[in-house]
Amino acid sequence: MSDWPQTSRPYPGILITLEGGEGSGKSVQAERLEERLRAHLGGSRQIISIHEPGGTVLGEGIRHLLKQQPQRLWRRVYKQWADLTARGPLDPVAELLLFAAARAQLVSEVVRPYLERGDVVVSDRFADSTAAYQGYGRGLDLDIIARTNAIACQGMKPQLTILLDVPVEVGLARKGPESKRDRLDSEERSFHQKVREGYLTIAAQEPERWLVLDGRGSPDDIAEAVWRRVRCLFKELR
Amino acid sequence: MSDWPQTSRPYPGILITLEGGEGSGKSVQAERLEERLRAHLGGSRQIISIHEPGGTVLGEGIRHLLKQQPQRLWRRVYKQWADLTARGPLDPVAELLLFAAARAQLVSEVVRPYLERGDVVVSDRFADSTAAYQGYGRGLDLDIIARTNAIACQGMKPQLTILLDVPVEVGLARKGPESKRDRLDSEERSFHQKVREGYLTIAAQEPERWLVLDGRGSPDDIAEAVWRRVRCLFKELR
Repeated sequence: MSDWPQTSRPYPGILITLEGGEGSGKSVQAERLEERLRAHLGGSRQIISIHEPGGTVLGEGIRHLLKQQPQRLWRRVYKQWADLTARGPLDPVAELLLFAAARAQLVSEVVRPYLERGDVVVSDRFADSTAAYQGYGRGLDLDIIARTNAIACQGMKPQLTILLDVPVEVGLARKGPESKRDRLDSEERSFHQKVREGYLTIAAQEPERWLVLDGRGSPDDIAEAVWRRVRCLFKELR
Repeated sequence: MSDWPQTSRPYPGILITLEGGEGSGKSVQAERLEERLRAHLGGSRQIISIHEPGGTVLGEGIRHLLKQQPQRLWRRVYKQWADLTARGPLDPVAELLLFAAARAQLVSEVVRPYLERGDVVVSDRFADSTAAYQGYGRGLDLDIIARTNAIACQGMKPQLTILLDVPVEVGLARKGPESKRDRLDSEERSFHQKVREGYLTIAAQEPERWLVLDGRGSPDDIAEAVWRRVRCLFKELR
């Protein structure tokens, strides 16, 4: 995320993001962090929890488009297009820009207004997910991703990003052995491996922003480690 | 479009774009040019006519989303979202990125494959429209627009762009005095004026790529002037 502007924080709020592969425990830790923030801050700052992609009308629409066979959706909505099936698949750059459009709307509607009011925004995934999944995982040009993220984020940058790192096998096993694990072939395993290595590479480039934790620990231990770092952050910002 | 890569043409085809404000006569001249190209090239190169935004399933979908009250569409498709009307308006950067996603898909599906085969693509509007309308017209940061366009265009750049320049009053009058002209208040006139000036500014920055023509001339005279320049282009490229 080297294209993120290196200026000092232009807003009084705090943005904390959670990142990691499938089954790394982000949503559990997001909830734990939210609880502790609420207890610690006691109403002095509002706490907003969001997840990506989504969180706005446009974002949820784009999420559905990207995940649920968009051609079928379009065919239902615009029946006059008879030649839909003859068209090509979604271009990776178009996909990147759609994710970025969703992020820009989320930043504009939710992230920026709360940060400008001095509140705390906790996001389950943010711009770094795009770098890890589409860049390191799918092989899309990292510079294009960095530039697109910089445009979409509109100057908003996490003060702290927590990476919950787990071996691919552990994460996939957590997602449920019956339903999902059997469908993941070896190619998909190697994709998840690239995503994991991507995250570790990104985190190493900006160690002051990232807290890398072993996601195999107990939820209580991880929550405690997260909280120690977050408490430091609040002290630094005072 | 200073962010367009300045490398030599990496494909054997030719991309010609037409630009201009409302009522400048782009679609008429695109048809005339297509006819003359067809007669001149006699099957040696295929000629593809496209318009923006649109031209792909994704692009037409985004076009509808941007033009036809997207919230109403989403509400119809996803009835579970009860709080749609409470959400904010479309963020200008999100809008820019949606246009860019449509352009990336058009480049990937249509523009690039034909240019790589050595064909001729004539586009009624392309990336410069975004700079003129959203940059100069709406005031969005020109650097962000240039960077977004560079990502969406994926190295494809017009060899020739024809600007049909007409005074705002002339263009708006051509769009039909009863239906449209009365609805345009003074603020909208000033918007069109900024778009016109924007186009002239962009064209002056890259005079070797742009042919600026007075769009008030007769369609025959304009078609002749366009053809003289296009014929030169084909001679240069031989």
